[in-house]
Amino acid sequence: MRLRRTEVTQPDGRQVSLYGDFDPAPPGYEAPSLGQGAYQRRWNPLRREWVLYAAARQDRTFLPEQALCPLCPSRPAHSTEIPASRFRIAVFDNRFPSMLAGVPTGMGDGAVASAGVCEVVVYSDEHQGAFATLDADRLEALLEVWTDRYRRLAARKDVAYVFIFENRGPQVGVTLLHPHGQIYGYPFIPPVAAAEEAGRGPCPVCQVLADELRQERRLLAGEAGLATYVPASARWPYEVHVAVRPHRGALPDLDGATRRRFGQALQRVARAYDRLFGEAMPYMLVLHQRPTDGRPHPRAHLHAEFYPLLRDRGKLKYLAGSESGAGVFINDTLPEESATRLRALFD
Amino acid sequence: MRLRRTEVTQPDGRQVSLYGDFDPAPPGYEAPSLGQGAYQRRWNPLRREWVLYAAARQDRTFLPEQALCPLCPSRPAHSTEIPASRFRIAVFDNRFPSMLAGVPTGMGDGAVASAGVCEVVVYSDEHQGAFATLDADRLEALLEVWTDRYRRLAARKDVAYVFIFENRGPQVGVTLLHPHGQIYGYPFIPPVAAAEEAGRGPCPVCQVLADELRQERRLLAGEAGLATYVPASARWPYEVHVAVRPHRGALPDLDGATRRRFGQALQRVARAYDRLFGEAMPYMLVLHQRPTDGRPHPRAHLHAEFYPLLRDRGKLKYLAGSESGAGVFINDTLPEESATRLRALFD
Repeated sequence: MRLRRTEVTQPDGRQVSLYGDFDPAPPGYEAPSLGQGAYQRRWNPLRREWVLYAAARQDRTFLPEQALCPLCPSRPAHSTEIPASRFRIAVFDNRFPSMLAGVPTGMGDGAVASAGVCEVVVYSDEHQGAFATLDADRLEALLEVWTDRYRRLAARKDVAYVFIFENRGPQVGVTLLHPHGQIYGYPFIPPVAAAEEAGRGPCPVCQVLADELRQERRLLAGEAGLATYVPASARWPYEVHVAVRPHRGALPDLDGATRRRFGQALQRVARAYDRLFGEAMPYMLVLHQRPTDGRPHPRAHLHAEFYPLLRDRGKLKYLAGSESGAGVFINDTLPEESATRLRALFD
Repeated sequence: MRLRRTEVTQPDGRQVSLYGDFDPAPPGYEAPSLGQGAYQRRWNPLRREWVLYAAARQDRTFLPEQALCPLCPSRPAHSTEIPASRFRIAVFDNRFPSMLAGVPTGMGDGAVASAGVCEVVVYSDEHQGAFATLDADRLEALLEVWTDRYRRLAARKDVAYVFIFENRGPQVGVTLLHPHGQIYGYPFIPPVAAAEEAGRGPCPVCQVLADELRQERRLLAGEAGLATYVPASARWPYEVHVAVRPHRGALPDLDGATRRRFGQALQRVARAYDRLFGEAMPYMLVLHQRPTDGRPHPRAHLHAEFYPLLRDRGKLKYLAGSESGAGVFINDTLPEESATRLRALFD
């Protein structure tokens, strides 16, 4: 690890990790404290999946003005989540988490204490900007931070799956514009990860990779150790995946050069999205990696999935009855056409 | 069947079913014609589900003024989807379908012709109104129409699952405000229906029903033959299910009185939603019924699920990284609290 990590424990017990150089918090810094509420998870017997309850989240900060941004460095008379007046990258336990360890449930109905971890990853101490515009040095640092967080959360007995993701844009419900992502440490293997491992035979991501590299029609980039493509069975218009090759399960399995290129590949996708309709593309970026429940998961294959929300200029793709009630996605854009348009926008 | 059904075949081959009395189309009626495009389905090997492609849908009608509404009765110089100048309830093949039978695919990548059926159900020839405000007579007629469509689509060899649903409100992507719902005839059993049937032991809906009736905490109504409740493991804030009891698989299995009460129960939920935040609640309403692939499905249990989109006044519940990328729903409202609030709004 090239970056130094400094740990700070806030008065409410939440951890802050400052990566790289920083300047200390200004005098009079007062840490914000954890939102109170009910944290549970319950088994849904019809969907056969866990549902998380976090009943304090209704009051969370909603698109504050820049002067009030809780992800900016702290200033005199403005204490933020970050106990530093300058920093490089910061990770902290979410003040309005979806899961919280150590909360007794007190409810019946098969509810169990939620357990789990919700971290916020602040990409920069500059309020303006986006993942797409991080400079090369900071992007490399972010990939190191993701790798370190994966390792640290994987070591916890109460974390079965480390889920690194970014929600970008108010259209996906983002309440803070300061460039940041999140990490969830689920106490179970979530359904989407379980589905990727289900079945028999060769790893499905390896098979998809081989097809996309051979056919080239949906391939956006194929640099050493990686492939970037619109998958043949994309659920979202302009959905893009970035997969590592050969088969690797998680970020710590990558050598430094591949990890750096992985970050660059993600950034190229994000930049192409912003060019596609001439407006900031709202998207979800999720990393799928090897579960961390201590069992071997030879079929888990590290890759990133981007779900952009616009299907055309100013037009959102909605998840409606078919997607939500039947589980069937409808895509009004053929993946081959999405790939042709995006490829032309790649730098 | 109390309602007479009159079939009209449009010049492009699409079927229109007029239920009950109607007045014929005005002279000079010209039927709109099917949007051209690519219709396919492809198997997604990571999610282990089918994805539908309908590449003509980008041009579909978007929130037209009332004078241009394609679901209103036809008038001289305004030909709509309905070849009648007055009607009670009309069902027609969608001009911009998500699936279309008989279209060759021509693409590789495991794509197959989409097959399937997409119908639009127009609840009324009046442009104003909503499911929540249909009068008792029309509501009863709608339940008869749903039952008749289930029977008719179930008889088709290319339909394995009949999915009756309504998307309500622009926030869920509805492009036409005239009161209407939809019916999809999928050529496969969709994942959500398959999950409900998975596992062993007693029917999961029967178990949920018994729990909710016993506990009463989340019960909104328990009229004969039915129960209306916020499920203990609701994924959406204010999610409500209406299930029939005892176990019945599909609408044709209900006697007339239970079917009528089922419609009334759904309408009570929709009315409570509109009172909840003092604004029209955007929602999805979906019916889960027995698959129609010709095999027995003893565990399938007819019930309706409402997914309302608002979690508070003017605040949407977003599906973000956790829901879309991991398959884990986060609900910031406890089901018991949702039930208490909704119960107070029930008429």
